[in-house]
Amino acid sequence: MNLNAQWIVGFTDGEGCFHIGISRHPEMTLGVQVLAEFVIVQHKRDVQVLHAIKEFFSCGVVRSNHGDRMCLRVRKLEHHQKIIVPFFETHPLKTRKQQDFLIYRDVVRLMTDDAHLNQDGLLRIRQLSGRLEERNENSLQGKVHLSEKSDENK
Amino acid sequence: MNLNAQWIVGFTDGEGCFHIGISRHPEMTLGVQVLAEFVIVQHKRDVQVLHAIKEFFSCGVVRSNHGDRMCLRVRKLEHHQKIIVPFFETHPLKTRKQQDFLIYRDVVRLMTDDAHLNQDGLLRIRQLSGRLEERNENSLQGKVHLSEKSDENK
Repeated sequence: MNLNAQWIVGFTDGEGCFHIGISRHPEMTLGVQVLAEFVIVQHKRDVQVLHAIKEFFSCGVVRSNHGDRMCLRVRKLEHHQKIIVPFFETHPLKTRKQQDFLIYRDVVRLMTDDAHLNQDGLLRIRQLSGRLEERNENSLQGKVHLSEKSDENK
Repeated sequence: MNLNAQWIVGFTDGEGCFHIGISRHPEMTLGVQVLAEFVIVQHKRDVQVLHAIKEFFSCGVVRSNHGDRMCLRVRKLEHHQKIIVPFFETHPLKTRKQQDFLIYRDVVRLMTDDAHLNQDGLLRIRQLSGRLEERNENSLQGKVHLSEKSDENK
């Protein structure tokens, strides 16, 4: 499958998600682990599209997500720095997901400077992560509405 | 907003939907109305993207969908025939949604030949519509799983 950069942007505007995970991890410097993620979830029938995007970016893993769904997930900081961030800087998203990308990019930059290893930097990352989660939750509420509506129409 | 054809294809692979509606309508020849639809639903915060796609295709209407969601909807047979079908024939979808498009295209062709005005043609359209609905329901079940998972993670 031959993917075009603009197709990737359009598909990410629809299905992509930028996420910052902060979880307890006793072995880390401040006792927490910060994880930036770029994720695209698809029904398993379209797993070949996820593999094609993985090939396009030359990074990430394709794995099971939930139920019948698979995902492409990029987690390595180096891949965010060198591949995902530069790609979406060159090819901006068209939807408001561009704002999500900018928050995620700020976190990747902070992590590049090891800000997640000191209290001030971690606080800043927590604030950015909170803004991102709030945006994603609002967006997901919309998706749930959509599903509810389809149930009504059955 | 300047949209590229491949962006439109990627965004439709993510968010677009082809639908055939068959409803009772006493004034129509066989007492039913057949309606082909191309729909893209978005959270209202991204309504400007729907307007940009409408402008790109020079057809369709942007209207309220459900809750906080808006949609771009193309319903006129002439617009399906002359704009939407030729566009996706020239720029094929990359996901399995391409199969949905091919079913919708078959219905548009049948309607172009006035097949929805005779019993045999209507039966054929009902069969195609059933296949499309089944595919959309399977796809939506996946979306619901996704929302459930997010709830678990809260």
